[in-house]
Amino acid sequence: MSTAREPRLRSENGSSPTGATLAEIARAAGVSAPTVSKVLNGRSDVAPATRLRVEELLQQHEYQPRRRSGPAPSSLLDLVFHELESPWAMEVIRGVEAVARTEGLSLVVSESAGRLSPGQSWVDAVLARRPVGVILVLSDLDQAQRDQLTSRGIPYVVIDPAGDPGPDVPAIGATNWQGGLSAARHLLELGHRRIGVISGPARMMCSRARVDGYRAALDTAGVPFDESLVAEGDFHHETGYTAGLELLARPDRPTAICTGNDLQALGLYEAARELGLRIPDDLSVIGFDDLPLARWVGPPLTTVRQPLVEMAESAIRLVLDLARGEAPATRQLDLATRLVERSSTAPPAA
Amino acid sequence: MSTAREPRLRSENGSSPTGATLAEIARAAGVSAPTVSKVLNGRSDVAPATRLRVEELLQQHEYQPRRRSGPAPSSLLDLVFHELESPWAMEVIRGVEAVARTEGLSLVVSESAGRLSPGQSWVDAVLARRPVGVILVLSDLDQAQRDQLTSRGIPYVVIDPAGDPGPDVPAIGATNWQGGLSAARHLLELGHRRIGVISGPARMMCSRARVDGYRAALDTAGVPFDESLVAEGDFHHETGYTAGLELLARPDRPTAICTGNDLQALGLYEAARELGLRIPDDLSVIGFDDLPLARWVGPPLTTVRQPLVEMAESAIRLVLDLARGEAPATRQLDLATRLVERSSTAPPAA
Repeated sequence: MSTAREPRLRSENGSSPTGATLAEIARAAGVSAPTVSKVLNGRSDVAPATRLRVEELLQQHEYQPRRRSGPAPSSLLDLVFHELESPWAMEVIRGVEAVARTEGLSLVVSESAGRLSPGQSWVDAVLARRPVGVILVLSDLDQAQRDQLTSRGIPYVVIDPAGDPGPDVPAIGATNWQGGLSAARHLLELGHRRIGVISGPARMMCSRARVDGYRAALDTAGVPFDESLVAEGDFHHETGYTAGLELLARPDRPTAICTGNDLQALGLYEAARELGLRIPDDLSVIGFDDLPLARWVGPPLTTVRQPLVEMAESAIRLVLDLARGEAPATRQLDLATRLVERSSTAPPAA
Repeated sequence: MSTAREPRLRSENGSSPTGATLAEIARAAGVSAPTVSKVLNGRSDVAPATRLRVEELLQQHEYQPRRRSGPAPSSLLDLVFHELESPWAMEVIRGVEAVARTEGLSLVVSESAGRLSPGQSWVDAVLARRPVGVILVLSDLDQAQRDQLTSRGIPYVVIDPAGDPGPDVPAIGATNWQGGLSAARHLLELGHRRIGVISGPARMMCSRARVDGYRAALDTAGVPFDESLVAEGDFHHETGYTAGLELLARPDRPTAICTGNDLQALGLYEAARELGLRIPDDLSVIGFDDLPLARWVGPPLTTVRQPLVEMAESAIRLVLDLARGEAPATRQLDLATRLVERSSTAPPAA
């Protein structure tokens, strides 16, 4: 039985694992049992064709290691980022490291170098070091990588899934849609009607949910949605700046702009400064995340708080539950976002 | 021969290792060889008194594992921070992770929870997982911890040593004194004569070096140094704010302030905003580090760039040289700092 799926789901599906042993896998593959063991432990001294055949059989037979067989799992926990560049990542590392330390686990940190799933060399290293579990941040695994971890009994949890990981994948997120809703409602209540958006990348589900929440706030307030006031960014400072310059250069420029995250909001601050627009007098700005720097900039940024440290803590607790074979109450959880009002929002100039 | 000391230095000193084998250590301690091996590998199933006796003998005989004896070192590299909280740490993680990845190494990140040296539980975990090497950031090891790593052939490098680690300890730093000098010179050239300082913590050598460079700039310019304009901070935003309020409340307030790092500069920005002082018109501010956020704040911060990513890269290259038994050209290296002029400094108001 896979540690990454609910036993109950499996029998409801009518499928049942074949319960093949390592020796049976070896016989079916026409290799020795130690060779299967090498593949399981990510050793490099196996011919690629043999490795592929064994992997296929492991997946086909839904191989599951017996408890306490093979080398003991290490006291490592893997944490993988899409990008390490942002202050965002620091908050997540802090949250995971603090819980890992109290659990006697050491944290292995890696970056998938901007790709949405880590490469095969990362998977091989994980299989060799046998961590207690894996946490992926704004990153995801393809099906073959999931199967490889599952067949070794290594559970994984995704924080803020970039794509649409499916209902079986353990995941911790935030209420992005509600966050977008509360940001736009705050601006509507202040009296704004022309509200722009500089969103995160559309390929990431969290970005789409934030924009949809914003649109819902307009709809329920009876304010028409102007598609041309929505620009797409990439969660970095630079696109907040460039998209900000474009939106603010319009003759009918918006009086307020919701941004996809705090870094984009700071890029927008820079664009406004360059154009001689004062925040919040001439332009209201809302961020998303509430990174420490949101309090430090001038004016302090009104933003939607995403509880990053708490999300990281929930992810590590979930992965540890799965590693212990405990069935968690839920394997997908969104923590609440909330609006934090500071000084970057005000009623529009008359 | 220890990998953490120069062979040449050792013979010049006239001391030579006894070259004791594991069996000899065991005999001297009155225990079995496997027990010594357990101590070497950080296993917990050894009585404390036995462990202590074995450690003492290992140190006394300057025990050094033979190459390729014992379990192979893992493909892990340990990176330990004094504190994980700052955006500073993120820059260092990025630099080390990028090189580690190209070297096929995985990075274990931990925090010594604000203490200047990591605890014994960290050391035990390191001995058990046998990383290729250890990098310590603004952190240090006590002598017993150094001896434990040395006797296992695990090299270590300190980035920006907090204390005064001595000439034998491999260390990567930045030219802090020159940085302080260039910051104060820039302000003097703009015409400032009353220049305040909000320093980093005095227990950290890098803070002291920066203040001394600042004082040297004043001395060489013939401007008297006013001790009462120097406040001590702790590298966090909050002390920049509180010390800033105090310095700026003086009737003879300074026209410019050098801060110990960028976060303190942002705290000072907040204090100035609260008092209605404009930067740079009423007050010039200089930071230290050049974190990404220095470009993003308003006004963009003039600061002394510390090449954090390059320092991290140098540290990992040095620790890998030591791990391979290669004698590096130098084991202590300070990378150059340089002033980055942005918009937070200007001539004093007439």
